[in-house]
Amino acid sequence: MAYADMSREELTALKVELEEELGGYKARDLHLNMARGKPASDQLDLSAGMLTVLKTMDDCFSEDGTDCRNYGGLEGITEARRIMAVLLDDEPENVIVGGNSSLTLMYNSVARYMDFGARGSKPWGDYDYIKWICPVPGYDRHFAITKSFGIDNIPVPMKDDGPDMDAVEAIAASDERVKGIWCVPKYSNPGGVTYSDEVVERLGHLRCAAHDFRIFWDNAYSVHHLYDDPEKQDHLLDISGPCHDSGNPNRYVKFASTSKVTLSGAGIAALASSPDNVAEFKQRMAIATIGGDKMNQLRHARFLKDADGITAHMSKHAAIIRPKFELVQEKLETKLAGMGACSWSKPNGGYFVSFNAPAGTAQHIVRLAKEVGVIMTEAGATWPNGVDPNDSNIRIAPTLPPLEELDTALDVFCCCVKVAYISRLLAV
Amino acid sequence: MAYADMSREELTALKVELEEELGGYKARDLHLNMARGKPASDQLDLSAGMLTVLKTMDDCFSEDGTDCRNYGGLEGITEARRIMAVLLDDEPENVIVGGNSSLTLMYNSVARYMDFGARGSKPWGDYDYIKWICPVPGYDRHFAITKSFGIDNIPVPMKDDGPDMDAVEAIAASDERVKGIWCVPKYSNPGGVTYSDEVVERLGHLRCAAHDFRIFWDNAYSVHHLYDDPEKQDHLLDISGPCHDSGNPNRYVKFASTSKVTLSGAGIAALASSPDNVAEFKQRMAIATIGGDKMNQLRHARFLKDADGITAHMSKHAAIIRPKFELVQEKLETKLAGMGACSWSKPNGGYFVSFNAPAGTAQHIVRLAKEVGVIMTEAGATWPNGVDPNDSNIRIAPTLPPLEELDTALDVFCCCVKVAYISRLLAV
Repeated sequence: MAYADMSREELTALKVELEEELGGYKARDLHLNMARGKPASDQLDLSAGMLTVLKTMDDCFSEDGTDCRNYGGLEGITEARRIMAVLLDDEPENVIVGGNSSLTLMYNSVARYMDFGARGSKPWGDYDYIKWICPVPGYDRHFAITKSFGIDNIPVPMKDDGPDMDAVEAIAASDERVKGIWCVPKYSNPGGVTYSDEVVERLGHLRCAAHDFRIFWDNAYSVHHLYDDPEKQDHLLDISGPCHDSGNPNRYVKFASTSKVTLSGAGIAALASSPDNVAEFKQRMAIATIGGDKMNQLRHARFLKDADGITAHMSKHAAIIRPKFELVQEKLETKLAGMGACSWSKPNGGYFVSFNAPAGTAQHIVRLAKEVGVIMTEAGATWPNGVDPNDSNIRIAPTLPPLEELDTALDVFCCCVKVAYISRLLAV
Repeated sequence: MAYADMSREELTALKVELEEELGGYKARDLHLNMARGKPASDQLDLSAGMLTVLKTMDDCFSEDGTDCRNYGGLEGITEARRIMAVLLDDEPENVIVGGNSSLTLMYNSVARYMDFGARGSKPWGDYDYIKWICPVPGYDRHFAITKSFGIDNIPVPMKDDGPDMDAVEAIAASDERVKGIWCVPKYSNPGGVTYSDEVVERLGHLRCAAHDFRIFWDNAYSVHHLYDDPEKQDHLLDISGPCHDSGNPNRYVKFASTSKVTLSGAGIAALASSPDNVAEFKQRMAIATIGGDKMNQLRHARFLKDADGITAHMSKHAAIIRPKFELVQEKLETKLAGMGACSWSKPNGGYFVSFNAPAGTAQHIVRLAKEVGVIMTEAGATWPNGVDPNDSNIRIAPTLPPLEELDTALDVFCCCVKVAYISRLLAV
């Protein structure tokens, strides 16, 4: 029976039962974590081969003869650009391989636009204020970057096929101070949504008041499918085509990394953009850097080899995390069956399940879970400034804990959802 | 006989001879390079052991148990901070280990101060203009960083014991828009100068109009001695003491990297500063990065081990580059003997010899050398904006070419110096 249809007596009795269950968990002194999108240890083990692809100094030369040990090479070695072009759905010549963090590439891109503008435009920092479109729920670290520069993060709702494009179009056209949008276009963080072709086309053809509007296309999960069956994989239209067709070839900057392909802290990150943008970025990078770590680029290229190598490697990841995602679905379906007022995503890839708790309960749920030793992402984190107006969305990150720990953590989580919902119903 | 004392006839005859010599070099189709401070291939070979210190996944855990493969750890792993503390002459707890480039750490430090100010001060980008003190001759890439942010680079002369402190004191006290100074305090680029204790003390006690003045202390060559004999090594007073004693504990930021210790493109960089500054940097980094590559940090710590390990390793570098530096001295002394109007540095460490050609000839010398296949650092590069008012200073970087190539390159260089000087004398 839906909780909303229960009597106060029934709810009160059920709550006593559930709080007893929570007490039982508490007694077990749990230390479980479903907070961050970190790969589990056995996923990292998949890249053991990367430790031994460069054994001697003779191994340290790229295919064009570059000594990868020495200085030089702003855009990265050829074979690493080719690997990253697969993840970025682009041509190697449009790719710049950076350090170990795509987040840093995004941060630096915003920072340089603030300081210097985009291809000769007025520096964004010279405006009284600027605005950025933030599809929500979204990625907290994206929102933190724009916020840190004093940029006004404007939330727009995510739908099943991407951001609400009516809202995006209205905002982009309203003010030349609206300078960009954060996008995780495939298996989005946290909703697992892949933008439809129509959404991507509309983004490319967006009428913007700002001629230097930029789409930050964080394709973090481009090859991160849960299933090998192509029918169960999402497919994303590349953003560069629509931008080019609409006469806005410099509008997008794509980002990706191998943080969830090889080693999370020791991967390689890259961006891809139009030839004009790439030239601008390289000009700035020539002042700021000696170029990325070419040894690590070479390790990646030798280990992953090519598109087929990436596919085969990602299939091994999927085999490890698929049972975890399936357990999340199974638990939520069985434990929360009939209760009502909850919904959640069923992604085909990525690292998260987006859970919509009964309105007004998310913070309570996360607090309850923490009290019994289960750490969730902070409620509100998926919204700019950390404030979810519905106090509803919670990001579930199931990859890090081993399956048996995840099982317990989900039991705890479901119990907390019920307790918080009943508390809310009884408080009305 | 000094050229200045020769008759026009003698000079003309000598010039014909020298131009014939140059013609001989040209016929040999040389491709030699004394332009950049790059280690030679056999120096890079010294770090072969670094390729095999992490062989299996069991090797990838730091001494406190951190899984170096996964996300996490803004300041770097303990053992890497300890290694970099040796290079930075500081305590590990004041060290943040960054990516592969100390240049990037410097660039980011300037950028953040421009955007956000220093510990609550007015953002430097909000001034109508700001100024930066640049000891010359100095490092072109330092000057390029400040210039790229529109900062006015103010040259002050380098003396044998460091920057002309009378000039530095006058400029620093003159205007609150003077925000900092570039320093390569040990074996300076290009002059090989190590700041005297008195200079370091005066820097620490500098009276600045700006309360947020910053000394950028690029200790790039802290362990880069040419000789093992301590008597032939320079010793540098640490800047943190005088800054602390003068009541300006947050005035300095120190930088270093292993680019010229292990692998130039795949080293680790770090900064050290006061606890307050370190806290500020970490707060900013938490938005901008996932932390440095801990795998590479671990490789470095395992390979270099400790201060003694670094000393032993740097001694091997010295054995390779010392003959090159000695050849430079020998060639310049013999080839330019008696000619007059030239001087050059005789450093005990670092990567460069600073050559002062007869006034008004540096550009001509570099152009002549290029015409016969010897690439030098651009004349003027050691000055802000690339303009040396005396057209005199040339940076000689002898490490990259093998000894026999260096021998030829120096013959060419000396010949070009003579031709250019004679041309100058004849033109008067």
